[in-house]
Amino acid sequence: MKQIVTFGEIMMRLSPPLNYRLEQASALEVTYGGGDANVAASLACLGLPAAHVTCFPDHQLGRAATQQFRALGVDMRHVVYTPNTRLGLYFLEVGSALRASTIVYDRFESAFAKLDPAAFDWEEILKDAQWFHWTGITAAVSAAAAQACRDAIQVARRLGITVSADVNYRRNLWQYGQRAQDVMPGLTEGCDVVVCSEGDAEDLFGIQADADCDNSFECMAQKLMQRFPQIKQVMATRRQTQSASHERIQGMLVDAGQGYLETQFYDITPVVDRIGGGDAFIAGFVYGKLKLDSAQQALNFATAASALKHTIHGDVNLATVAEVEHIMAGNVTGRLLR
Amino acid sequence: MKQIVTFGEIMMRLSPPLNYRLEQASALEVTYGGGDANVAASLACLGLPAAHVTCFPDHQLGRAATQQFRALGVDMRHVVYTPNTRLGLYFLEVGSALRASTIVYDRFESAFAKLDPAAFDWEEILKDAQWFHWTGITAAVSAAAAQACRDAIQVARRLGITVSADVNYRRNLWQYGQRAQDVMPGLTEGCDVVVCSEGDAEDLFGIQADADCDNSFECMAQKLMQRFPQIKQVMATRRQTQSASHERIQGMLVDAGQGYLETQFYDITPVVDRIGGGDAFIAGFVYGKLKLDSAQQALNFATAASALKHTIHGDVNLATVAEVEHIMAGNVTGRLLR
Amino acid sequence: MKQIVTFGEIMMRLSPPLNYRLEQASALEVTYGGGDANVAASLACLGLPAAHVTCFPDHQLGRAATQQFRALGVDMRHVVYTPNTRLGLYFLEVGSALRASTIVYDRFESAFAKLDPAAFDWEEILKDAQWFHWTGITAAVSAAAAQACRDAIQVARRLGITVSADVNYRRNLWQYGQRAQDVMPGLTEGCDVVVCSEGDAEDLFGIQADADCDNSFECMAQKLMQRFPQIKQVMATRRQTQSASHERIQGMLVDAGQGYLETQFYDITPVVDRIGGGDAFIAGFVYGKLKLDSAQQALNFATAASALKHTIHGDVNLATVAEVEHIMAGNVTGRLLR
Amino acid sequence: MKQIVTFGEIMMRLSPPLNYRLEQASALEVTYGGGDANVAASLACLGLPAAHVTCFPDHQLGRAATQQFRALGVDMRHVVYTPNTRLGLYFLEVGSALRASTIVYDRFESAFAKLDPAAFDWEEILKDAQWFHWTGITAAVSAAAAQACRDAIQVARRLGITVSADVNYRRNLWQYGQRAQDVMPGLTEGCDVVVCSEGDAEDLFGIQADADCDNSFECMAQKLMQRFPQIKQVMATRRQTQSASHERIQGMLVDAGQGYLETQFYDITPVVDRIGGGDAFIAGFVYGKLKLDSAQQALNFATAASALKHTIHGDVNLATVAEVEHIMAGNVTGRLLR
Amino acid sequence: MKQIVTFGEIMMRLSPPLNYRLEQASALEVTYGGGDANVAASLACLGLPAAHVTCFPDHQLGRAATQQFRALGVDMRHVVYTPNTRLGLYFLEVGSALRASTIVYDRFESAFAKLDPAAFDWEEILKDAQWFHWTGITAAVSAAAAQACRDAIQVARRLGITVSADVNYRRNLWQYGQRAQDVMPGLTEGCDVVVCSEGDAEDLFGIQADADCDNSFECMAQKLMQRFPQIKQVMATRRQTQSASHERIQGMLVDAGQGYLETQFYDITPVVDRIGGGDAFIAGFVYGKLKLDSAQQALNFATAASALKHTIHGDVNLATVAEVEHIMAGNVTGRLLR
Amino acid sequence: MKQIVTFGEIMMRLSPPLNYRLEQASALEVTYGGGDANVAASLACLGLPAAHVTCFPDHQLGRAATQQFRALGVDMRHVVYTPNTRLGLYFLEVGSALRASTIVYDRFESAFAKLDPAAFDWEEILKDAQWFHWTGITAAVSAAAAQACRDAIQVARRLGITVSADVNYRRNLWQYGQRAQDVMPGLTEGCDVVVCSEGDAEDLFGIQADADCDNSFECMAQKLMQRFPQIKQVMATRRQTQSASHERIQGMLVDAGQGYLETQFYDITPVVDRIGGGDAFIAGFVYGKLKLDSAQQALNFATAASALKHTIHGDVNLATVAEVEHIMAGNVTGRLLR
Repeated sequence: MKQIVTFGEIMMRLSPPLNYRLEQASALEVTYGGGDANVAASLACLGLPAAHVTCFPDHQLGRAATQQFRALGVDMRHVVYTPNTRLGLYFLEVGSALRASTIVYDRFESAFAKLDPAAFDWEEILKDAQWFHWTGITAAVSAAAAQACRDAIQVARRLGITVSADVNYRRNLWQYGQRAQDVMPGLTEGCDVVVCSEGDAEDLFGIQADADCDNSFECMAQKLMQRFPQIKQVMATRRQTQSASHERIQGMLVDAGQGYLETQFYDITPVVDRIGGGDAFIAGFVYGKLKLDSAQQALNFATAASALKHTIHGDVNLATVAEVEHIMAGNVTGRLLR
Repeated sequence: MKQIVTFGEIMMRLSPPLNYRLEQASALEVTYGGGDANVAASLACLGLPAAHVTCFPDHQLGRAATQQFRALGVDMRHVVYTPNTRLGLYFLEVGSALRASTIVYDRFESAFAKLDPAAFDWEEILKDAQWFHWTGITAAVSAAAAQACRDAIQVARRLGITVSADVNYRRNLWQYGQRAQDVMPGLTEGCDVVVCSEGDAEDLFGIQADADCDNSFECMAQKLMQRFPQIKQVMATRRQTQSASHERIQGMLVDAGQGYLETQFYDITPVVDRIGGGDAFIAGFVYGKLKLDSAQQALNFATAASALKHTIHGDVNLATVAEVEHIMAGNVTGRLLR
Repeated sequence: MKQIVTFGEIMMRLSPPLNYRLEQASALEVTYGGGDANVAASLACLGLPAAHVTCFPDHQLGRAATQQFRALGVDMRHVVYTPNTRLGLYFLEVGSALRASTIVYDRFESAFAKLDPAAFDWEEILKDAQWFHWTGITAAVSAAAAQACRDAIQVARRLGITVSADVNYRRNLWQYGQRAQDVMPGLTEGCDVVVCSEGDAEDLFGIQADADCDNSFECMAQKLMQRFPQIKQVMATRRQTQSASHERIQGMLVDAGQGYLETQFYDITPVVDRIGGGDAFIAGFVYGKLKLDSAQQALNFATAASALKHTIHGDVNLATVAEVEHIMAGNVTGRLLR
Repeated sequence: MKQIVTFGEIMMRLSPPLNYRLEQASALEVTYGGGDANVAASLACLGLPAAHVTCFPDHQLGRAATQQFRALGVDMRHVVYTPNTRLGLYFLEVGSALRASTIVYDRFESAFAKLDPAAFDWEEILKDAQWFHWTGITAAVSAAAAQACRDAIQVARRLGITVSADVNYRRNLWQYGQRAQDVMPGLTEGCDVVVCSEGDAEDLFGIQADADCDNSFECMAQKLMQRFPQIKQVMATRRQTQSASHERIQGMLVDAGQGYLETQFYDITPVVDRIGGGDAFIAGFVYGKLKLDSAQQALNFATAASALKHTIHGDVNLATVAEVEHIMAGNVTGRLLR
Repeated sequence: MKQIVTFGEIMMRLSPPLNYRLEQASALEVTYGGGDANVAASLACLGLPAAHVTCFPDHQLGRAATQQFRALGVDMRHVVYTPNTRLGLYFLEVGSALRASTIVYDRFESAFAKLDPAAFDWEEILKDAQWFHWTGITAAVSAAAAQACRDAIQVARRLGITVSADVNYRRNLWQYGQRAQDVMPGLTEGCDVVVCSEGDAEDLFGIQADADCDNSFECMAQKLMQRFPQIKQVMATRRQTQSASHERIQGMLVDAGQGYLETQFYDITPVVDRIGGGDAFIAGFVYGKLKLDSAQQALNFATAASALKHTIHGDVNLATVAEVEHIMAGNVTGRLLR
Repeated sequence: MKQIVTFGEIMMRLSPPLNYRLEQASALEVTYGGGDANVAASLACLGLPAAHVTCFPDHQLGRAATQQFRALGVDMRHVVYTPNTRLGLYFLEVGSALRASTIVYDRFESAFAKLDPAAFDWEEILKDAQWFHWTGITAAVSAAAAQACRDAIQVARRLGITVSADVNYRRNLWQYGQRAQDVMPGLTEGCDVVVCSEGDAEDLFGIQADADCDNSFECMAQKLMQRFPQIKQVMATRRQTQSASHERIQGMLVDAGQGYLETQFYDITPVVDRIGGGDAFIAGFVYGKLKLDSAQQALNFATAASALKHTIHGDVNLATVAEVEHIMAGNVTGRLLR
């Protein structure tokens, strides 16, 4: 089977144990993650061939991050290691009940932000691929990262590879002198599948559902597909966040052919780790598109996968296909499996 | 007071901390447990004299398992240690919310499975006992274990000792060439008190409640008592499992004299550790039979004990009599005790 | 800004990790706390100048306790260190669901209980203070501690400093030969602000709401203010404890001028650590009185602070002003803050 | 085989992990120990029947301490539990290289110190014993403890039971109004076997080797045996402490019949835990006396056991007979045993 | 560059933290290792392409073991997963000073022992290989494992691939009805490079140095090469074990062309983890043969690598080429590298 | 007593537990340190009034770092907090035996490096000071940091405050476009006391001992004092590093009046943590200058303090005056202190 290739930054994540605050912690738990890399890793856990492309410093931390993803089965052959650079970091404080989890980012001037677009030979990288996935975060990090992303999309289009994106607008990240509103449309128009919330659509593309629209997500998605005709599927999760410890999620998809689809709501309490829930959703959808029979099934698989991710520590959804299917089949009471 | 004696395998239980998956764990928490041994240990914590009979390898792991039960006050004098054998193990991954806990067993060819029935002098072991308890798991492990169980029941009957069993049918375990349906009736007919779910009754004894029965548990239990006239009490817990983190349980008992009895439902969220909840129920019932005034009280005690067990780490219910009585008295809001 | 000064015992708190029982723990987590000291520490975390006065043994444990409070910004200059004394301790076993948390105290004969009242030069200590806070626990510990408290209140009154108390009646503590009912009235009459539950009012002062009273807390508070005319505000939290893991709390205040005020209920599930919830409430109220515009706002701040405390490990509320205001503004769903 | 019975206080030991200082520790490792109890536990690990007699508070900490010793096989039937008392504690900071380990004791007013001598029925306790062991620490703790010790020795003498003591003089402990020099001789004269260093002999009994003596330990021991004719064996370990991480120890014995005996030196680096090294020595000697052929062999066993103890965490020597014999046979290079 | 391929069992290793004993541990540290797999992993850490071939159960533990080796860069494509089998385990208790480390094996009836030789297509597996390595442990585990090894050697010989073996005789392991002395010669004769101690040579092949030989290792090695003419290099490490915490090692090699070579002694104190020291030696030698200029240099590299391994936790030598070369260059004082 | 004021960067230090490598660690231990801040903290632990001046990001990590130093008693009033900046970090891998410890720095573009010199009102900061200490690392970090250091020295000179420096040349750090050789002389000439190794003297100032000099350190120091006449004392530690686990250190001082002084060597094995050993030496010397009678005594105190630091986890010497004096008095065998 041909590879799914993802591209983007991987950061070291440092968090106090349990619900401790950063100033209370005498040790920080460490794992590695990044929106696109999490997708690749989740896909590898689902048994699909996945590769991730990124840039690391050439010291122990780059090696450690590589090892984590390699362990999960991600092909890390195409990683570029650069001397005298740093690894992006983030510090996560996990909330509880009405106290929010908080993140302190320390990712500027990272090896990834300072990558050289010419260091990536996309023809070579994508020659055995069937799918390329990127996120809006990559475009936000630096002009160089955005350029590399643009190069990759271009090659993918030429090779007839499916392209997906999680447009994911994070206002604070865009600090290299270009506006997301100027950069993202050009990248988005090369995509076949897009994860985009209503907020992102408005912020990035100025697209809003009309006031009299019954289903604002559907209306937004239809407008988005009109604007970018290559896009055939727009999706998102609807979150009814009850507290830092309790989420309810539902999957939504607008398919160019079939219109609006949605799934049941999944109730997740307590939440073990909500980071990477969206990435698990995307990976689940890619799996579903490649392996299952219908868009509805793919959406169901994606949403069940995302729900499971909320019960797993770390950024990556370690669930297997059997586990996701177990949830899809309605087994949501967590009955002990001997 | 005379002893309660239990017989069965004790395994090492290895589980990742918190809700981590096995492949994420750099350390595994270790404790020891087994259905019947948990009953003995719970009884010892309730202040009753209890002994457990089993077979261990004669190396450090057998010693460590012995120590844990001895710590809790269980008389381990009758344990047989055999050279060149192994300790059964199981790996427990603790789920959360809609993700189920899972167990990987590694118990075949254990010291217990390979025990020599002749190594147990039941006359001697039971000479100061008033109660003998076993489970269907023991009968499932090997022909030798089933034989030792048969021997014990026979001696117990002759000595006029009460016999109880948790018939507990686990299909996967029966692999030594005999069918549970052939072995279990012979063992069950020597029992006075039996824990048996409706599913077990059907699977093991082909007993089903009639279609028009109002209370299927009661009908099943009455049929079971007709089939095995020695049995005077049949009981079970009804579980309304909401998620891996949330259980609701109720105790049910059919008494030959008093008919059907039940308790209130207890709501347990979050569940700390649900392994051993059934064993705590049995131990509570044995305590109740020996110390309290009525079958209803015994059932209430058993169910409160089982509810408490769900909040305690490990296989064994460490609750004291005062703690169980505190719950029985309706104190279920967990108000701080200074 | 002038200091808030608190006075009382600080104990070492030892507790097993997670929900383990004391007999299961091979290590105990250690932190330090005490009702009044927690108030000072919470105030320091809110950015106000706070000092705590206490008495410690002059060995490593006194030093360690000092360090924890100094870390949080509490002025510990006035601590008295005495040779050949011990630090009070308490052992906390954290419950879950219907199992209560329990505390084993080991605080008798501590350095604080054996303090010399003459060792505290209150004129000097309070010369730059605007507020003095104490609790009924201090009065309960020993005659010497009660005397030091009496001295402090007297000086505070003379210097025109606001005095507050959490009257907090703990029957078991009063063992030095005087009755709380004899000691507490004399101390309480010097207070401007008092935290007092209906139970405490009855136990300590024989004050009960009349049977036909619509709002028993308000009626009690009005009677209390009649009895002790210096008191201008009486407050408490109403707890609807659902389980050891689930609290609902509401703030209540009777203000001499404005009558009865209350806040919304906050729902906290799961509770991370409920010790110190009342102290966080008081600290929040002191902050509100000094910084906010109305008694209602002060009460709102106090209650939001207390709710947040339930999500934080240890005795002390580490929340910042921004975090409390975030909750006050209605952000109670714990949405991730990047 | 008849029991060896020991008597004395058991304390909770709290220590930071590794070489951390108390003020750095967010958790303290907990174990339980006491000079005489360690002897009983070591003997149980060597397979001999041992019982320990002590007094505990009747709450969780007394239960936890009981469990640890019961786990190791010590008969704890004779423990007296008293309400409203406390468990003695000590805080251990483990040094390294030239930094000494330090202990902060918090043992005054413990359940043991406040024991009621009448609570111990020594006739009953010792009826199946062959050996009774006590230490000078017990005599130092309180007049009541010294009295209970005196009672036990008296009964033991009458029943013809061997009595041993580690006279162990700790100046700081004697605070109940009697002098060690007045109390200890009366207790010591009832002993058959005594552990006594030259310093202890001088401090407690005013016994010094003559200036022209070649072997001062031997000369002291001979004088001691003259003074107390019941004593037939006096022993001690000679320590050449290189650093907190490196000990060299040798066993010395003066036997009434055979005169001075000694063992080789054992070199222990790094030391894992030196607490309880002396208790392991005594337990080893008791084992040797009861099981081996000569005083020299008993001394060799005792010293090898003590050396092994220095490599084992906690107060108690967990070594088995086979392990001690392995060292005695000259296997001191720690070659891996598969 | 062509792959180095290794073949053999990987076990889960469970060990208490620090120097704790198994019965003291409430958690066991987990890692995975096996003699041949450790060689592959060390080679991957040295930057060479390495693959390991083995057989795992198809459940979480097989997955976890795969992940660890994949993380380090080992190609695990050829692993065979079989249902209803178990993973071999071993329990390691780490000694200190004169206390030996001990291992309790629990590896019988493992997935590897029960492998089907036909499941390995050696033509395919070895088609891009330049080196094949196996150990005597593989031959000892079961007739099936020995057969698979025999098949692999045969194919390797035919393809002109270098074959190396660590003959490693472990008497206890040979339990499947054939004698090592009958099985090993046939396998050994196909090897180019052999690790063989003098003890192994005598036990397995009845080869002893003549009594008048000056260098018994050299004499043994010459005889071994006469007996098995394919062998061109025989090597071993000489260990001067001072204690469980202190090793001295030297590399020795007899080369068919150059005769006896040896390295300096390396002094390692304290030893962090001595498991896998021999495997690191072999991996270092393979690296040296493929990358360095002389047999002496290869031996130096191998010995420095083995010395470094003793300072690294786990079975695998994680040292990089730069680190080994740093030691080879004489930097053995561990001076801080900023 | 007047304050000792230090100035420089504080970094978060992240290190795997024990001797694990970074890629093995699932958690990293966290502490905070910096050359000059460690001096202030050590002085505070010795009971002297010390203040540290630095610049932190205004988020949780700055707060956490502040708390650690405040806990130890350092006055952190003058810390400047700046928005949108990062905290410098370093990753420490602790070696063992012949494996070196290694550090990966990630400190560029930190809040400290980007400080505004105008933000520090040195007149105010130093108005109650008697001593100002800085290090060459501060000058290396950025032009702004060097400027702030220059400002401070100037003010200190004007106020008649003693100035000390650890010139500490780290080639890799100087990356802001100026050469250490151009910057350092100007700063050094304002110093009274200087820590300077022979290597630093040559690298920074081109000063070498003459070839025929008997004591090269003394000769270098004399030349240094000629070049910078303000300097009255030059000192350093001589290290005989045996391995990563074993250090030998000696203090050396050249005093303008008394010439060359040195101390005994201290042997430290095992080393617990060698980071901060030099800072402990300086703090000890400052203490000695202010409190003891002679330069020799100050040097002895400094060296004993440094030796003790090697046995203490973290960057900071937590030793008390009593502990340092205990070592100075020759108590280096680490005998247990009860």
